[in-house]
Amino acid sequence: MKDINQFTLTDAVKESFNTEEGSRFRFLLETFIEHLHDYTREVNLTHDEWMTILNFLYDCGKISTPERHEFILLSDVLGWSALVDMINTRGGATEGSNLGPFYLDDAPEKALGADLAEGREGVSVLVHGIVRDSLSNPLPGAIVDTWQADSTGTYPIQEQERGQDKYDLRGKLTTDEQGRYYYTTVLPKPYTVPYDGPVGDLLRAGDRHAWRAAHLHFIIRAAGMRSITTELFFENTEYIDNDAVFGVRRSLITRLAPVKKGEEFDFTLERRPDAKVHFDFVLAPEG
Amino acid sequence: MKDINQFTLTDAVKESFNTEEGSRFRFLLETFIEHLHDYTREVNLTHDEWMTILNFLYDCGKISTPERHEFILLSDVLGWSALVDMINTRGGATEGSNLGPFYLDDAPEKALGADLAEGREGVSVLVHGIVRDSLSNPLPGAIVDTWQADSTGTYPIQEQERGQDKYDLRGKLTTDEQGRYYYTTVLPKPYTVPYDGPVGDLLRAGDRHAWRAAHLHFIIRAAGMRSITTELFFENTEYIDNDAVFGVRRSLITRLAPVKKGEEFDFTLERRPDAKVHFDFVLAPEG
Repeated sequence: MKDINQFTLTDAVKESFNTEEGSRFRFLLETFIEHLHDYTREVNLTHDEWMTILNFLYDCGKISTPERHEFILLSDVLGWSALVDMINTRGGATEGSNLGPFYLDDAPEKALGADLAEGREGVSVLVHGIVRDSLSNPLPGAIVDTWQADSTGTYPIQEQERGQDKYDLRGKLTTDEQGRYYYTTVLPKPYTVPYDGPVGDLLRAGDRHAWRAAHLHFIIRAAGMRSITTELFFENTEYIDNDAVFGVRRSLITRLAPVKKGEEFDFTLERRPDAKVHFDFVLAPEG
Repeated sequence: MKDINQFTLTDAVKESFNTEEGSRFRFLLETFIEHLHDYTREVNLTHDEWMTILNFLYDCGKISTPERHEFILLSDVLGWSALVDMINTRGGATEGSNLGPFYLDDAPEKALGADLAEGREGVSVLVHGIVRDSLSNPLPGAIVDTWQADSTGTYPIQEQERGQDKYDLRGKLTTDEQGRYYYTTVLPKPYTVPYDGPVGDLLRAGDRHAWRAAHLHFIIRAAGMRSITTELFFENTEYIDNDAVFGVRRSLITRLAPVKKGEEFDFTLERRPDAKVHFDFVLAPEG
């Protein structure tokens, strides 16, 4: 037999996969094997360290449920999710950011001008802007699918046992003929990612906090355009410089402004807001 | 705030961990983050691919039990376990190889010359040699801890429901004053690693088989010496060139020889064998 040593092993492992030459799967797998083996050689990984890593993954698996995917959380705190969002942002389009664990694809449709707060306490804020393409053409009929935490940093979906409706603080709005979207809601507060599992142990070992900067989630879709998944943040709010999952981008930070007494809008709102933020979403063409 | 992009993100993630400067933990973590991010940028990982990887890890977690650690199996088929074994082999010592999932640390002590087959069918084989240090000094009182599959490729521990004793085909022998160990057993057969889970799916996607070359497992311990975990293989047997977990090393392949009619040994055996293999284990000093 051909002898295998710590240097020739990597090629032997790559060659053991009889995957189609030139396929994407082969490329992803071979590059992964190279990095895994290079890492191991570079750090001179011991058996104990190797076993600690494997048991960490085992523990992540054990705490995971369909509602709590510890591996996504791990990806988040290692900046992996953020990196995937960044490299998949199209030139000219709004930057992408974390999907997070609380998206529901069957959120209710809401009319433009609706109040998504459903009577919740907190600062009432108008969120409005235009959905357009990268040549500044407005996109009528675009879908603005949004979800968020409340003014205590909690998503209604997390509080169903206490009688909250999981569809509250979320909804799908359709832009008007000028590409406009507008609705009111409560200003969300920061919250922590789950830190009672293996990823929490990792954060503690690294002396890191688990807080996310306050944000609104969005998926924006329009016919013929590439969808974007992103978040909006608020200037000068807590954790904006050290969000636990690296979701903040400078281009996604909005400025909250007070709504002046007697200030009028050129659209109709269900509820008069205390404050307002403006943000235009830009989509790039598909393909 | 400082703006973060796909290139500056890696440093931001590394700096988010406030781990002790110069610590091993920091080095392992930072080097891992670099490789994870470099991989992602190099392959231009899509959201779908990223999610496929995370769900693969989730599925590995779901099928894992204390008796079936799918992440160790994943490490095995990616040659990671073999690489860790290789880089932790000391110069002059016997090469390390896979521990595998079936080790029991409370295996019974067996006398030199014992037959570990416990009446099992198959080729009876004498396994013998010397345990010595790298200066060729024999090591009396060394522990030879061995375990193996039977002549159908099954470990008794896997067949407990069918009445097999999990401690069969294993035992701890102590070398004599000349450093010798000797016992008889049945010749093991190849078997497959578990392929009914996510790792099996990976093997199928890569058009790879799940077979291991036939082998005997060993942990060798001696006072003041660094223990070794290794395996012995047999020349010209199936899968010796493409063991599913990359456990075979040229230096660990033994030659099976027939025991001639009337052949005598300078030690006493409980059962007369059909064949014999000879292998000397070499330990390096601790530290």
